Amino acid sequence: MAAPAGTSVGDVTQAELRLAARNHALPLEALRYDITPAGLHYLLVHYDIPTVDPRTWRLQIGGCVRSPCTFSLADLQALPAASRVVTLECAGNGRARLEPRPVSQPWLTEAVGTAQWTGVALASVIDAAGGLEAEAVELVFTGLDRGIDGGVEQHYERSLPIAEALGPDVLLAYAMNGEPLPAQHGFPLRLVVPGWYGMAHVKWLAAIDAVAEPFAGFQQAVAYREYDADGRPGEPVTRMLPRSLTAPPGIPDFLTRERLVEPGTCRLQGRAWSGWGAIQRVDVTVDDGASWLPAQLGPQPDARCWVSWSMDWVAEPGTYGLSSRARDTAGNEQPLEPRWNLKGYVNNAVERLAVTVRAAG
Amino acid sequence: MAAPAGTSVGDVTQAELRLAARNHALPLEALRYDITPAGLHYLLVHYDIPTVDPRTWRLQIGGCVRSPCTFSLADLQALPAASRVVTLECAGNGRARLEPRPVSQPWLTEAVGTAQWTGVALASVIDAAGGLEAEAVELVFTGLDRGIDGGVEQHYERSLPIAEALGPDVLLAYAMNGEPLPAQHGFPLRLVVPGWYGMAHVKWLAAIDAVAEPFAGFQQAVAYREYDADGRPGEPVTRMLPRSLTAPPGIPDFLTRERLVEPGTCRLQGRAWSGWGAIQRVDVTVDDGASWLPAQLGPQPDARCWVSWSMDWVAEPGTYGLSSRARDTAGNEQPLEPRWNLKGYVNNAVERLAVTVRAAG
Repeated sequence: MAAPAGTSVGDVTQAELRLAARNHALPLEALRYDITPAGLHYLLVHYDIPTVDPRTWRLQIGGCVRSPCTFSLADLQALPAASRVVTLECAGNGRARLEPRPVSQPWLTEAVGTAQWTGVALASVIDAAGGLEAEAVELVFTGLDRGIDGGVEQHYERSLPIAEALGPDVLLAYAMNGEPLPAQHGFPLRLVVPGWYGMAHVKWLAAIDAVAEPFAGFQQAVAYREYDADGRPGEPVTRMLPRSLTAPPGIPDFLTRERLVEPGTCRLQGRAWSGWGAIQRVDVTVDDGASWLPAQLGPQPDARCWVSWSMDWVAEPGTYGLSSRARDTAGNEQPLEPRWNLKGYVNNAVERLAVTVRAAG
Repeated sequence: MAAPAGTSVGDVTQAELRLAARNHALPLEALRYDITPAGLHYLLVHYDIPTVDPRTWRLQIGGCVRSPCTFSLADLQALPAASRVVTLECAGNGRARLEPRPVSQPWLTEAVGTAQWTGVALASVIDAAGGLEAEAVELVFTGLDRGIDGGVEQHYERSLPIAEALGPDVLLAYAMNGEPLPAQHGFPLRLVVPGWYGMAHVKWLAAIDAVAEPFAGFQQAVAYREYDADGRPGEPVTRMLPRSLTAPPGIPDFLTRERLVEPGTCRLQGRAWSGWGAIQRVDVTVDDGASWLPAQLGPQPDARCWVSWSMDWVAEPGTYGLSSRARDTAGNEQPLEPRWNLKGYVNNAVERLAVTVRAAG
C-alpha cells in the first residue's frame, strides 16, 4: 500500500534534514539538569527568528475587551511578576519514529526542556484591559514570525479557550532562567501555557485578541490535529501526554549513540512529565520489556515540571534494551508502540536505548 | 558502482538523524548578528557533554615542559586576560551535500558561528610551566569527553604543531560572549585556535602535554583527513577554506525553507570568512550562476572574524537561484561544485537559496 500523501517510509528526506539542521532537541545527557541551561532546551522555529526592537515593540490587546490598549515591555515589567518552572515539549516529539513517517520536523524523542519562566499573569493583563466582554469565547495570540505553511501565508497564531487562558498558571513571559528571553525563544515576550505542548506557547507575541467565535486560523484548525490516514481531522492537540526519558548511562559511540557501561551497580536516572496530572509512577526495563521494575520518584512539588526518577541496576556483561515508561495520576500511560496519525503528533511511545555492559576488566 | 563503505546515497539514515537531532547549525537568519548569541552558535558534541565541578577541575600541563604543573580555574583567571572575536566552522560543514554522502553528522552549509572568546594566551600558560624542552614538536590537548569513535574508545584529543600552538592568537578560553563557557561549549575551559576548523578547538580541556613525536591519536591520525574513495588518507584538515552565506531574504516556507520576497529593491546581506586570509571579495548571483556581481564588503578589522557583505537587488517577479561566493587574499575561492572526499570534510562549495519574488500587489 502506498504511504499517505505527506509521509515517507525509511530514510529521511532533504526537506526534513533542513529542518533538523536548524531546530534542535535536548541532548539526552542534559536530562541531568533540573532546569535546562540556555542553548540546550529544545527549539523549534516555524519561520524565521524575527528581529525585534524592544524600544518600539508593543503588545496590543484588542477585540472583545472593554478597554483595548497597548503595553510596552516596561509597562508589563511594572506589573506584579510571577515565575513558574515549566516543562515544555514539542507536539511533534516522536514523529520520526512513526511509519510511514509524516514529513515535517523529524523529532526522535528528545524535543523537550524545562525552564523557569518569569513574566506577568495573562489574567492580570486582561484585567488591565478592562476585562472581557460577555461574548468573548477565546483569546487569539499573534506572533511576529511570518511565513508560509501548508500553502497559507500567515503570522504564527494560536488561540486558547477563555477558561484555559485566564487560569492562574498562564504567563506572558519576558524572562527565561532569570535572563531576558533569548531571541530564539520569543524575545521580548512569549506565552507560556503550563502543561500544553509547545505549539500553544506563542513566541514573539505582538497581539492578543478576544474573539466571539472559535478561531479558525491555520495553526489552530488545520495543523495540530490528530488526522487519520485519509486526512480526516481528529481531536485537536492540547496537553502533553506522559513521557519518560533516561539520561543515557556510560559512554556513547559517536555515530550510533549506543552506550557502553561498566559492569557493577549503575544508577539509572531520568525525568518524566505529563500535562494531565502528576507523575504517578515510572517503570524501567533493561530487557526490552520482558520485565519492568518501578523507579524511585524524586520530589514533585509542581505537576507542571518534570520529576526525576532513579533506579539502581546491577549491570552484568551483555547487551540490553533499556526503556522507561511513565504513568500519570489522570490514568494516562505511555504506550509501548507508537500510535500513528497523519501529521505525527503526540507520539509518546516509550524510548529505547541500546546498552552494552562490558566484561569485567 | 556501489557507494564506498561508510557512505550513503539519497535520503538520510536514522544514525545521521540521531546526530542531527542533538547537534545544531546556525539558523541562517542569525547571520544578522555580528556576534552569534548564546544558543544559536553551531554545536557539535562528539560524545556526551561532561559534568565538571569547577572547584575540583584542574588543567594539567605535562610532558616535555620544564616544570610540569596544574592550574585551577582561578589560577588561569589570575593571568592576564585576552579576548578575541573568532568565527568557528565545523570541518564537516557541507557534508550532507556530497554524493555519495559520508555517514556522519549531516551538516548542510550552516555549521558556523562567531563568538567573543576570553581567556589566557596558551603561550603564557606554557611559559608558566617553565617553557618547552628542546625535543617538543607538538602540544596534545585532552578533553574530558569520552566515547567510542571508529571502534576506538578514547577521550577526545587533538594536537597542534608548536609553532601554531604558541602563536599569539591561540587562547585557553573560559568565557564566551562575556559569560562563563556554556556546558555544551566546553565549560570550564576550551582551546580556541583562530582560523582553524572546529575540531582543533578542544572543549572541556583537562590536560596539555608537550610531546617529542607527532601525535598519532584517532582524531588526529585517522579522523579529519581528506581520504579518497579507496580509503587512502590524504591531507589533514587544518584551516577553514573560504565560505560565504546569505541571510535569507523575505519569508520562508516552513517545510521547504524556500523564500518568498516582495518585488522591489531587496538588500541581500550575508557573511564570509576564511582561515587562510582576509576576505578579498564576495560575488553574488541570483540567476544560478549565469551572472555574478560583486557585493560590498563591510569592515574587516580582524581576519579571524567573518566579514559582512551586502548588495542591493532589484527583485522582479519570478523564481531565482541565489548564491554567494567568497575569495580570500590567499587566492582560495569557493568552488561551484562540491569536492568529494570519503569522510566529507571541507566541502565549501557555494550555497543555493531558492527564492520566489511575488507579483506586484
